Amino acid sequence: MSKNVRVLQQLFSPSVQHTLDLIGIFVFAISGALLAVRKNFDVFGIAVLAEVTALGGGLFRDLVIGAVPPAAFTDLGYFLTPLLATLLVFFLHPQVERIQVAVNVFDAAGLGLFCVAGTIKAYEYGLGLTASAGLGLTTAVGGGVLRDVLANEVPSLLRWDRDLYAVPAIVGAALVALCIRYDALNPLTSALAVITAFVLRLLAMRFHWRAPRAWHRRSTVSEEEQPVLP
Amino acid sequence: MSKNVRVLQQLFSPSVQHTLDLIGIFVFAISGALLAVRKNFDVFGIAVLAEVTALGGGLFRDLVIGAVPPAAFTDLGYFLTPLLATLLVFFLHPQVERIQVAVNVFDAAGLGLFCVAGTIKAYEYGLGLTASAGLGLTTAVGGGVLRDVLANEVPSLLRWDRDLYAVPAIVGAALVALCIRYDALNPLTSALAVITAFVLRLLAMRFHWRAPRAWHRRSTVSEEEQPVLP
Amino acid sequence: MSKNVRVLQQLFSPSVQHTLDLIGIFVFAISGALLAVRKNFDVFGIAVLAEVTALGGGLFRDLVIGAVPPAAFTDLGYFLTPLLATLLVFFLHPQVERIQVAVNVFDAAGLGLFCVAGTIKAYEYGLGLTASAGLGLTTAVGGGVLRDVLANEVPSLLRWDRDLYAVPAIVGAALVALCIRYDALNPLTSALAVITAFVLRLLAMRFHWRAPRAWHRRSTVSEEEQPVLP
Repeated sequence: MSKNVRVLQQLFSPSVQHTLDLIGIFVFAISGALLAVRKNFDVFGIAVLAEVTALGGGLFRDLVIGAVPPAAFTDLGYFLTPLLATLLVFFLHPQVERIQVAVNVFDAAGLGLFCVAGTIKAYEYGLGLTASAGLGLTTAVGGGVLRDVLANEVPSLLRWDRDLYAVPAIVGAALVALCIRYDALNPLTSALAVITAFVLRLLAMRFHWRAPRAWHRRSTVSEEEQPVLP
Repeated sequence: MSKNVRVLQQLFSPSVQHTLDLIGIFVFAISGALLAVRKNFDVFGIAVLAEVTALGGGLFRDLVIGAVPPAAFTDLGYFLTPLLATLLVFFLHPQVERIQVAVNVFDAAGLGLFCVAGTIKAYEYGLGLTASAGLGLTTAVGGGVLRDVLANEVPSLLRWDRDLYAVPAIVGAALVALCIRYDALNPLTSALAVITAFVLRLLAMRFHWRAPRAWHRRSTVSEEEQPVLP
Repeated sequence: MSKNVRVLQQLFSPSVQHTLDLIGIFVFAISGALLAVRKNFDVFGIAVLAEVTALGGGLFRDLVIGAVPPAAFTDLGYFLTPLLATLLVFFLHPQVERIQVAVNVFDAAGLGLFCVAGTIKAYEYGLGLTASAGLGLTTAVGGGVLRDVLANEVPSLLRWDRDLYAVPAIVGAALVALCIRYDALNPLTSALAVITAFVLRLLAMRFHWRAPRAWHRRSTVSEEEQPVLP
């Protein structure tokens, strides 16, 4: 299957790329582990949620593009990094929660890195530009959705009362797709796409940007009066 | 992998087939978007739930049979149709809910189309008849299950207090498998299978057909007294 | 893809292997069906939960290693066995619940069988030893996690107030990986790995072994005072 892989110019040196991946995996794993602690899971539950959050998005992407076995199962570092995050949170979680702001900043960085890397990998495996951007978005947000599903919560990606999360990833993925379309993908432009998504997410958190709910929802009806399901 | 694809007679002209697919995707997307509005999700949550409901079943089928990348990521129309449904529900959801009956009728049509198309595609990729019918059923109901899981609800497919949903799809898929078995699959018979599943679902909604619960559940014990989990 | 399959010595005769697989599938299906009855699902909900619990772990493994179509869709016995479990639970569930101890013992046997078989199959398809053990663990516990997600419960795998479930499977999978590493995998050693996982799980249930929660959770704060999510 790898014969179909389109060769894009190498964006970063392999070791730089790998380091960036591991950083993204680590911060996503921290967010999964912290939710597990809040849900009162045991140490194995923490490890499972860390692994799923960190690797779930990329695993889904690799299954879709036929890159099997997925990177999550071929690169030992990908597998071990979430366990490191688990240990850290297990022993130091009050301290980690105290630096929640730092965790959020890293998570925003992970979002930017993953939406760009996911889009590029999907395109390399032959998907169209729109589909590549869509899969890049899925790579970036998929792990968090799986985390929330396993924790039996409504995915925070879907909730209106959370700061914008999908939009920065959509913008980052779309920028990469545009760069590919106009043959302008290089380390500089892709770094710019990462940074754009990263900064947008930081601004969304800082100013509590929210997305609108359906048109007639924004009425005077209070939350309590609204039936969850008829 | 596509070399193993068995060639069945072309059922419909490709453009007719594609149009039917898009209709099925559209109505499933509407059902996802409406649930998202009821759950008070923001516009991105609505779009995600519309996409997942419309494409989830076929995506799972394509991963199972090794048809990667799945049609959901290679056909731009498949990706854009749920976004159209999102816009419609976003701006007009009270009107859409008012025509809930029409939505249910379309959803029944989608169920019929997807169980038949799913069974045929699975057989073309080399599965046995029983497995093909099973995967056709999964194609038809999978998106709705994913929708409910993401919305943090018990899948309505599983609940005893919902009108029959799986049975019409099982019947449609089984009819197709029988037609293949006796070499009688053609546009007419497969259209009949679609219509049978469609009409059965309409009747189930009209007369509130329910499936039985486990034997000793149908006792005098009221719901409240039954422990959910020991 | 199957050309990459590494040939390990045949562990058991094919028919013995197949029988063991079916037993594991059957007992996992029973656990899914029983949860469905407790959740008050109808007969189709029971069947779906039985199928998902029994086949989900192996299906995920097969998708990851590229063994498509997965065994769940190529071996009719794999598909029919959960339906048999469904019938049994449907008509006899009070009796089945009364022998819950027996069901738990069989489930422990299924856990042992699946973690060992999953590790071996993953290695045969070219994964590294650590990844193979990880995927063996996933094979053993994945069905139960999917079962709980579909039933809209927090997966019992993750909960601190359940007896150890992951650890026996980890030990069994790790033993197999060690045997492969030191070229000592044969029917005897793999049977020992199955039995070790099986007995560990029985002991965990008998003595209510639990895994620790995060460090500062084990404080004097009562459950009620702990926020589930800030």
